[in-house]
Amino acid sequence: MTDCIIIGSGVAGVSAALTLKANGKTFELLGSAALSEKITKAEMIRNYAGLPNITGADFCKALQDQLAQAEISVKEERAMGVYALNGKFGVATQEGNYYESKTVILTCGVESVKTIDGETEFTGRGVSFCATCDGFLYKDKTIAVLCTSKRLEHEIGHLAHFAKKVYLIPMYKNVEIQGDNIEIIRKMPVKITGNSRVETVVFKDKELAVDGVFSLRESVSPTTLVSGIETENGHIKVARNMQTNLVGCYAAGDCTGRPYQYAKAVGEGNVAAHAVSEYLAANK
Amino acid sequence: MTDCIIIGSGVAGVSAALTLKANGKTFELLGSAALSEKITKAEMIRNYAGLPNITGADFCKALQDQLAQAEISVKEERAMGVYALNGKFGVATQEGNYYESKTVILTCGVESVKTIDGETEFTGRGVSFCATCDGFLYKDKTIAVLCTSKRLEHEIGHLAHFAKKVYLIPMYKNVEIQGDNIEIIRKMPVKITGNSRVETVVFKDKELAVDGVFSLRESVSPTTLVSGIETENGHIKVARNMQTNLVGCYAAGDCTGRPYQYAKAVGEGNVAAHAVSEYLAANK
Repeated sequence: MTDCIIIGSGVAGVSAALTLKANGKTFELLGSAALSEKITKAEMIRNYAGLPNITGADFCKALQDQLAQAEISVKEERAMGVYALNGKFGVATQEGNYYESKTVILTCGVESVKTIDGETEFTGRGVSFCATCDGFLYKDKTIAVLCTSKRLEHEIGHLAHFAKKVYLIPMYKNVEIQGDNIEIIRKMPVKITGNSRVETVVFKDKELAVDGVFSLRESVSPTTLVSGIETENGHIKVARNMQTNLVGCYAAGDCTGRPYQYAKAVGEGNVAAHAVSEYLAANK
Repeated sequence: MTDCIIIGSGVAGVSAALTLKANGKTFELLGSAALSEKITKAEMIRNYAGLPNITGADFCKALQDQLAQAEISVKEERAMGVYALNGKFGVATQEGNYYESKTVILTCGVESVKTIDGETEFTGRGVSFCATCDGFLYKDKTIAVLCTSKRLEHEIGHLAHFAKKVYLIPMYKNVEIQGDNIEIIRKMPVKITGNSRVETVVFKDKELAVDGVFSLRESVSPTTLVSGIETENGHIKVARNMQTNLVGCYAAGDCTGRPYQYAKAVGEGNVAAHAVSEYLAANK
């Protein structure tokens, strides 16, 4: 069991990892070796103290180098569920692994693409966020897949392997995935409807009958990810030391609210890591 | 009247200035062109995201270059009093100037040297924080001067010009100032005592009779600086958006509490600047 699991490899997660490492704590950093699409996409960062006019790509490279230098590696896994269990935490990943830790720092960012009406309502009743977890449930069925990032295309392939028919609704450019049973829909759905379970994806001018909907997003919403976490206007509610309503669970970066800025994320990651160290010292 | 006055040129102040500038706001940055002694003195910063293993001196240089590039200059003045006045602020400096602004960001740091017993109690009754403001009041009198930084030695000179006798109690190394009426005391006082006004500086093994005590510190305590500001354990109490209990007055960096880290200061300066921008937009 590690001291901490950091969920998300954006700027806040990297900052938290650097400080936990400096404090001699053990931890897993779950995310992507590419760190974060949001960092890389930034054209120019003008107001990050110490690095004037740096591009997102260069900033990302600097963080990767710094992680390497500090001997911190990113575990390329996506957390799908975080559970608070008697003073420790369990984290299940899409890759099918399960990790335990004494504390958790959520740096899961915010999803830039809004959820569709009905998406949250039907979660667990036909709406799934995890292709690996639930794909086999839709063997020979018809599903719709909302996907916000090209990086998640391999998950669509996984789903197409099981399903009879996949309606792919991509929210990104340059779709590459192809398949006999994949039909690409270039419209945004208005809502997801059904009775006890998902039945229909509704567009302005048509409807698609489906057995299930997969919502593949870069970041899972905090309430979906962490059972019992308190949010406010879609952001994780935190105290000044970045503690959430769950003891031992901290959050940092965009997921705690605006401004969505690197400086804020770096600062909050640092504060959360210090709070974790204090918590560990007090709960030996 | 400017949009904002930033009080303190440490890391938090610089970060706030960079973001206010990026947001097109007008402001004064009060402090030192050398930025902050605390930055320069840091041997090695290991956990600041993007700049691995940078020395304090190099970090300071990077910030100075970035300010120059953004065409932000530091006004070399020390704020001695901040007053909230009907939706605007007045800031009086030791240099005798007075500035008005719509908002204030306090980035005044924390004093690493603890106050002496009686120092706060006798403020305004023989204890002064401002040589320029109050020096002439002690013409031909005997005073003690507590001084925490060599950078403030010129103020001692100012005091020695008026006073008959100056007991200098330096809390720094390599004292350079000399004078016929200056006696250097290399001991820490235990307390300052008196009846209605200061009368005595008490040491473990002796007492000095004085007419007044000057406390020359790198950073003035928030409650001394800002009338009516709410603090908690010696730190300025702030909300998540860095607002203090005074509307339009924000704080960032070490003055808001631990951890005393660059990353935290940078993040909070950024958040405070965004909060100022929002406040200005809502109160046009």
